Amino acid sequence: MSIPSDISIARNARKKSVLEIGQALGVPAADLVPYGHDKAKLSPGFIESLEVRGDGKLILVTAINPTPAGEGKTTTTVGLGDGLNRIGKRAMICLREPSLGPCFGVKGGAAGGGYAQVVPMEDINLHFTGDFHAITSAHNLLAAMIDNHIYWGNALDFDLRRITWRRVMDMNDRALRQFVGPLGGVSNGFPRESGFDITVASEIMAILCLARDLADLEARLGSIVVGYRRDHSPVFARDLKADGAMAVLLKDAMQPNLVQTLENNPALVHGGPFANIAHGCNSVVATRTALKLADYVVTEAGFGADLGAEKFFDIKCRKAGLKPAAAVLVATVRALKMNGGVAKADLAAENVEALLRGSVNLGRHVENIRKFGVPVIVAVNHFSTDTAAEVEALQAYARTLGVEAVLCRHWAEGSAGIEGLARKVADLADRGEANFQPLYADDMPLMGKIDVVAKEIYRASSVVAEKAVLDQLAAFEAQGYGHLPVCIAKTQYSFSADPSLLGAPTDHVLPVREVRLSAGAGFVVAITGEIRTMPGLPRSPSAERIMLSEEGYIEGLF
Amino acid sequence: MSIPSDISIARNARKKSVLEIGQALGVPAADLVPYGHDKAKLSPGFIESLEVRGDGKLILVTAINPTPAGEGKTTTTVGLGDGLNRIGKRAMICLREPSLGPCFGVKGGAAGGGYAQVVPMEDINLHFTGDFHAITSAHNLLAAMIDNHIYWGNALDFDLRRITWRRVMDMNDRALRQFVGPLGGVSNGFPRESGFDITVASEIMAILCLARDLADLEARLGSIVVGYRRDHSPVFARDLKADGAMAVLLKDAMQPNLVQTLENNPALVHGGPFANIAHGCNSVVATRTALKLADYVVTEAGFGADLGAEKFFDIKCRKAGLKPAAAVLVATVRALKMNGGVAKADLAAENVEALLRGSVNLGRHVENIRKFGVPVIVAVNHFSTDTAAEVEALQAYARTLGVEAVLCRHWAEGSAGIEGLARKVADLADRGEANFQPLYADDMPLMGKIDVVAKEIYRASSVVAEKAVLDQLAAFEAQGYGHLPVCIAKTQYSFSADPSLLGAPTDHVLPVREVRLSAGAGFVVAITGEIRTMPGLPRSPSAERIMLSEEGYIEGLF
Repeated sequence: MSIPSDISIARNARKKSVLEIGQALGVPAADLVPYGHDKAKLSPGFIESLEVRGDGKLILVTAINPTPAGEGKTTTTVGLGDGLNRIGKRAMICLREPSLGPCFGVKGGAAGGGYAQVVPMEDINLHFTGDFHAITSAHNLLAAMIDNHIYWGNALDFDLRRITWRRVMDMNDRALRQFVGPLGGVSNGFPRESGFDITVASEIMAILCLARDLADLEARLGSIVVGYRRDHSPVFARDLKADGAMAVLLKDAMQPNLVQTLENNPALVHGGPFANIAHGCNSVVATRTALKLADYVVTEAGFGADLGAEKFFDIKCRKAGLKPAAAVLVATVRALKMNGGVAKADLAAENVEALLRGSVNLGRHVENIRKFGVPVIVAVNHFSTDTAAEVEALQAYARTLGVEAVLCRHWAEGSAGIEGLARKVADLADRGEANFQPLYADDMPLMGKIDVVAKEIYRASSVVAEKAVLDQLAAFEAQGYGHLPVCIAKTQYSFSADPSLLGAPTDHVLPVREVRLSAGAGFVVAITGEIRTMPGLPRSPSAERIMLSEEGYIEGLF
Repeated sequence: MSIPSDISIARNARKKSVLEIGQALGVPAADLVPYGHDKAKLSPGFIESLEVRGDGKLILVTAINPTPAGEGKTTTTVGLGDGLNRIGKRAMICLREPSLGPCFGVKGGAAGGGYAQVVPMEDINLHFTGDFHAITSAHNLLAAMIDNHIYWGNALDFDLRRITWRRVMDMNDRALRQFVGPLGGVSNGFPRESGFDITVASEIMAILCLARDLADLEARLGSIVVGYRRDHSPVFARDLKADGAMAVLLKDAMQPNLVQTLENNPALVHGGPFANIAHGCNSVVATRTALKLADYVVTEAGFGADLGAEKFFDIKCRKAGLKPAAAVLVATVRALKMNGGVAKADLAAENVEALLRGSVNLGRHVENIRKFGVPVIVAVNHFSTDTAAEVEALQAYARTLGVEAVLCRHWAEGSAGIEGLARKVADLADRGEANFQPLYADDMPLMGKIDVVAKEIYRASSVVAEKAVLDQLAAFEAQGYGHLPVCIAKTQYSFSADPSLLGAPTDHVLPVREVRLSAGAGFVVAITGEIRTMPGLPRSPSAERIMLSEEGYIEGLF
């Protein structure tokens, strides 16, 4: 069976007008702020008016550790939403917005794939409704105000070596990672080391995704720590009086974006924080709005369940008071075979043994998710090379864990291919078995929180950190940040900090190299291993092949 | 008489839906791409469909040399458009989009003032429809592809000292003007001097404003010269295969934005190139579209007539084949008194003598505009401190030049205050006296073109340039760029290169310090004096006072 390319499927979608999509949700026309004919924002007034309603059931889609084989977490999120609608449920999906920069590097879009996509995929992958541009502007306004403050005399007494606020750009531009400036003699010369991160790595992105509303957003913006004085006391964004103007720039970006799936079901696509130095989930405002508008809300979290689900539960759900009803763990036969030691080139060949060897990765994620009190089901995202023996072996293994593994063909067949999973997920959520609780209490010390995640989720035997790191954590606690959750930045490829340890490694040590405070977002980042906050482009970036066709279509974005 | 603030007037505007505004212009609903309820883009198909129609009359609004007293060129453009509609003419206005960055510095918005504004003014002054963000992205993608190319081996053999393509940001951030990077050892270290300009200074902004359509845009993007090899041969954007992806990023930004005036008349607000290192006019696409949709189109050009009108005529009209029917020269009693030597603090006192001394500035601009074969009329933008004696003296002086000076009160009264000017401008345009011709022929040598503008418009006695500049011009001619018009970057405050020489100076020398090629935009920039392509913020930037009110209104943007 030959499936057309994602972009060609998306282009041939029979889209409804976003007004129709909004109407079906009961959004009054004046509260649906259109961006073109197929995208719209929901007004703050409309969102406020929903407060009185009850909540639908929240379903998290997460995955095994990612491999180069591909798992299809977003695709499954979209497919499951369509599947639930197909079986007669009122369901919505909540996704993150893709970052524009990486589209020009190696990966293509991030709006699902095959017959499980949100559209308009070109817009969603490029400028969309301008949210990321607004975040870039707000972030860089604060940066400009810092350097301007220093230029005019540095009344706040910044230590130039301890300015932690960098600049951002939504572009894969490694040349901006590190530079020395500003140069220019008396008219401009206060040189220091600085650089750019990609916009999704901005703390403002995380703030926008965690803020309840505009007032909460503005308060969080003011609480950003932008640097330190020589006595190590923090300087806040509000000390620079930057919070008001930043909130003004983010006013529209705070409103969730309504689009549709290929099957004309409603989707909110909003926010997209990095899944390592931030929490990697779509916005709280979008999720809470969807819960008011639908009986089932399907959402996703970045990377595998060790990073994504843990942060979804311990940061997003904890902070927003969300109670997930069920979790779906996405796996593919191919990815489990890679976890079992098969090279990417050999994945097409049947290999039940390797599959079973790699399935321990799946098993551990199932165990982990249950620790949060959330019932789980496995979605096997079908690839055409999967054999019947492999699928059966995987399903049998899942049964030994007491979990069902449902084969899904949404990529090739749309909602028709995922009806089975949809029925089982709805049943699971309806049974009310969930008894969500975060992994650790707010009042545990910061190092204790890191230790719990490391041991309970990553299964490390211990956590190591130099004295400077421990001192920094103690300083955060002394400054009143001890109650915050921790956001651990770790490789997504392994449970451990070593990306080559696939499967379900044990007896490894988690080295905490550095800790950073995101006071506005409301978490403490613990960095283990290398964290790239500004990607680069490959030798032959996909930008070289992206262009407009003679008919004005976008080619090469997929 | 007390007039409320611009933002308060704008907020209380009785806006029509942009669908109504579009309907009145005959734009089919499917071709009107909404951005909210009060902004929309016109589809490429609709614009193409207009080709067969005849053109309305084009009216340029320009001004005397600007002073800190304020002249009100945009306000008069908006007022005149409303005035023409008031007297029963089908009129549209075409404006530039304001830059977001400067809103947070000293100046407020740039969407007119008083009762002559385009709305929604907050949106227009901030993100609007995202055009500037798209230009920023396209510009910086090209920059990232240059450094990425070098990183992967520099096959095109860039001379690292001769990379002319910088990066841009829509922010007043002087700290980004000059830095050394990328740093980072073997993983990243190809340090060179570079920096950021403000987005409006991007060549891509000028390209977008001069391109006929998307195909022309893509061709021009490919022709951008991004740097030179050691043998001084140019490297083009198309050598990096960047043109296609850049055009994709600019696809929507190419479409003109429809908004309305406070009196619900249609306005296209599109493009906003710097008025010194670029041509400073709104987009050709918007102007040509308006000419098909209206009988009278009122547009403006940046700075005073020596810079703005000259570039409008010699670059925009020449390249786009536009034939302006009339020009309106905006002056104020206050600004002419400053030209006559009065300090800003003393402007409120009547001073007919100083007014007449300064009026030579007006007189020379009238003479200059006539050299392009375009009939001119003077609009006196009324301030409450103007005395009857001053206005009469100014009108009498204008009569000696054979030009009418019409008092206009649109700022305080809207279209009712500018009816007189509207009738006279319509008459002037209808009389068909215009016989437009650019100042110099395409085939004149580049230095000859600079010389003509310097002597005919600035009234310099001579032009001086070092041998390096002359050699560079010769190199441009050898490379096939000799046919391009010149875009002279000069202070806006004086006819001369010395900003302190007000009035109508003669016998000054124009020093050409540097010349740059904008091969994609299609002009050669000649720089005289200091050119700042990245502004800074003042000691207490207006960002400190911009915030959201409790009702969610934007405060402090004015």
